[in-house]
Amino acid sequence: VEAEAAVAAPGSELAALLGDEAVLDGSDPVWSRDATETRGIEGRADAVVFPRSADEVARVLAWCYEHDVPLTPRGGGSGFAGGAVPVEGGVVLALDRLGSVRAFEPLLWRMHVEAGVSTKRVQQLARESGLLFPPDPGAPEQSQIGGNIATNAGGPHAFKYGVTGRWVTGLEAVVPPGEMISVGGPVRKDVAGYDLKSLLIGSEGTLGIVTAAWLRLMPAPEAAYPVVGIYDGTEAGCEAIERVVGSGLVPAALEYLDGGSLAAAGGSFPGGVPTGAGFMVIAEADGSLDEATRQRDELVEVLGEEVLAVVTPEPAELWRWREGVAFAVIAQRGGKSGEDVVVPLDRLAEAIEETVEIGRRHDLVACSWGHAGDGNVHANFVVDPRDEAELDRARAGAEELFAMAIRLGGSISGEHGIGWTKRGWLERQWSPRAVELHRELKRVFDPKGLLNPGKKL
Amino acid sequence: VEAEAAVAAPGSELAALLGDEAVLDGSDPVWSRDATETRGIEGRADAVVFPRSADEVARVLAWCYEHDVPLTPRGGGSGFAGGAVPVEGGVVLALDRLGSVRAFEPLLWRMHVEAGVSTKRVQQLARESGLLFPPDPGAPEQSQIGGNIATNAGGPHAFKYGVTGRWVTGLEAVVPPGEMISVGGPVRKDVAGYDLKSLLIGSEGTLGIVTAAWLRLMPAPEAAYPVVGIYDGTEAGCEAIERVVGSGLVPAALEYLDGGSLAAAGGSFPGGVPTGAGFMVIAEADGSLDEATRQRDELVEVLGEEVLAVVTPEPAELWRWREGVAFAVIAQRGGKSGEDVVVPLDRLAEAIEETVEIGRRHDLVACSWGHAGDGNVHANFVVDPRDEAELDRARAGAEELFAMAIRLGGSISGEHGIGWTKRGWLERQWSPRAVELHRELKRVFDPKGLLNPGKKL
Repeated sequence: VEAEAAVAAPGSELAALLGDEAVLDGSDPVWSRDATETRGIEGRADAVVFPRSADEVARVLAWCYEHDVPLTPRGGGSGFAGGAVPVEGGVVLALDRLGSVRAFEPLLWRMHVEAGVSTKRVQQLARESGLLFPPDPGAPEQSQIGGNIATNAGGPHAFKYGVTGRWVTGLEAVVPPGEMISVGGPVRKDVAGYDLKSLLIGSEGTLGIVTAAWLRLMPAPEAAYPVVGIYDGTEAGCEAIERVVGSGLVPAALEYLDGGSLAAAGGSFPGGVPTGAGFMVIAEADGSLDEATRQRDELVEVLGEEVLAVVTPEPAELWRWREGVAFAVIAQRGGKSGEDVVVPLDRLAEAIEETVEIGRRHDLVACSWGHAGDGNVHANFVVDPRDEAELDRARAGAEELFAMAIRLGGSISGEHGIGWTKRGWLERQWSPRAVELHRELKRVFDPKGLLNPGKKL
Repeated sequence: VEAEAAVAAPGSELAALLGDEAVLDGSDPVWSRDATETRGIEGRADAVVFPRSADEVARVLAWCYEHDVPLTPRGGGSGFAGGAVPVEGGVVLALDRLGSVRAFEPLLWRMHVEAGVSTKRVQQLARESGLLFPPDPGAPEQSQIGGNIATNAGGPHAFKYGVTGRWVTGLEAVVPPGEMISVGGPVRKDVAGYDLKSLLIGSEGTLGIVTAAWLRLMPAPEAAYPVVGIYDGTEAGCEAIERVVGSGLVPAALEYLDGGSLAAAGGSFPGGVPTGAGFMVIAEADGSLDEATRQRDELVEVLGEEVLAVVTPEPAELWRWREGVAFAVIAQRGGKSGEDVVVPLDRLAEAIEETVEIGRRHDLVACSWGHAGDGNVHANFVVDPRDEAELDRARAGAEELFAMAIRLGGSISGEHGIGWTKRGWLERQWSPRAVELHRELKRVFDPKGLLNPGKKL
């Protein structure tokens, strides 16, 4: 990150605090956006700071608290809920320079990393020592472990291995008015005190700023073999998903793509998709070589009923393609407006079909894909981000998606968080007393409401 | 539970509210004690109520809140930290009658149970459908799922499968001043709102009373084979533990018993223990039949270095014996004073040896056993519960155990909780700002401080 000479109002004071080279003036729009720019969301950064240590993070927060300036923490900016967008202006605090791996003890299955370390680096370090850090949200090069923790990020392999929070045993965080706290550590169990760690995980930087984490790792499975079933439509596909869950197998991942997503992304699927393909299920067997092979063969059988094709693509190729699905959908019209509602597994087919219906009602092309086993539906409207009327229709459609999730007994967000895009919706999902407790928790941590304002509530 | 005609002061008003047969006068000392009675801890119950529904729980809490009467929720009373002891008198609210399984959907791996359902029943129901509810704290017939959640209970298989909280996807709870809230549900992922669910889990009934939970289950492994290594002492045993962790295997459980525990319980070990036995390691292989067999053979090899004996006992027999270790230790002198500190795995040998040292300094016989892989040490002093001087020495020894855990980078409790026995110690483990946040969280939920007073803080 290059420093700039000219810094704006908060910038000059912060430069005095941290040095010129740690502060930018925020004129580059990259700091006012995150992955929601494909749906036209943008804030305003009055200054961007790049602290080099947790102590510097604390000094920035203390300064903001003293001067009543909003502060928006920012990881890799790959979030889909606008969590890193400075919607009320003020200071953007980028965690890029908190990039140290403080400790890595492969024989003890643990790693101590600073918030700015990329998800990819954590995954790779683990891999190089025969270990696995299972969470695998998208954009691993761009996204940072601190942001993954702040959003409790998921990914395909959360089905077997759980979301990011399950792999965090300790947190270091800076909380208002500018103090560092530590909860947990390199221990695998801890029930002393209320679970402040879990409260900070997924709080989207509205309660505190995660500066470092102790991560738990596990020995990497020897082999992983994806099995893909392609069906003529949602009904047959969802039946296959329920068959897998009912089979006694525990696949590492259990994903789906609906017809619209397949239409957008199927062209580049390794080996191609057969004519009439209207739904895809991806399951992955993993374990020892023998075990993964045995499970793969069982998956081929279970997915093989009423199927157009069952294939076993090369894992790296398959997951690279899967990671590109969102881009293939965006490529159609230049943008997409996506939500990540979650429903009980037995309501999955309904949610998938209703997503398309909701799109139709708002004159939008809708499609969905996601983490079938977790009931996590990435419901997307294909949009042109310059078309304001279309974006308005997409916003109206999103409201119906949220209402659907709640009606089906699910949640408005499975992994992206509330951020800015789902503001106001928690009140519809939770009872008044629970929402009141939520508000009071925010007040306890951040009485001035300066930490990532406008988010999560 | 039989009702009594005569009810004391709060009892008569509560009887008017819930009916005579839902209230006892608290004269039976069973309601004033929990598993800490072996170390002489007793409270005073002015009345005991047995609500039949979450709504009745809410009415009792509302009554207590209106009349400033302390309320102590009680599950099975099998806790080791005094969490269910009414140390400030008032009302004991027993959850025994909230005993319904509201839903069980084996094909979807989920169960909706009320708080008073026994841990054993949850485990058995799952088993009968080929599923596993992995948490296995002790005393499964006596302990209740609500209490397991309130303490975030662990057990031997937490090493591979995690503690109770990992298997809870939704909670229904009654919070002051007497309202029911629901967070999560039959969904496997949810990042809407702060993690109130995790905040309630492990809060020991000081923030709210869990009345029901949605549990996540998983297909049961086909086979489980324990492998036991017996060594001449702590050093060789702990080296074996580190070899297992470094081997790339993920055992379902990884337990230990030190020399003193073996001396107390070894006599009934299936097949007996060899002369000179000073340490035992229990590892369990699980998975498909093939996989469990393969892992068992590898465990036999890894545990087989510098060993007195490696044996592969019948699983049910082994775990029954393991469950009885605490009773064998108690049987020596009629009581024990135990703590469950947790340390990073590389400090385990130190913690085990220092436990014996601390005992020696206080003229107490000390021994430990526990969940080695999780660094969770059940450190116990063998006592006569009628010997006040000895109990005093045990209390002084416990303080040194807690100090040791913190010094080694661990925690004062891995699974039993703070309860009453560890009061005042969180301040030594956490920074002042974290403790302040902890206090404020309590205030948010329970402004009058009537919910399980004296606990957790």
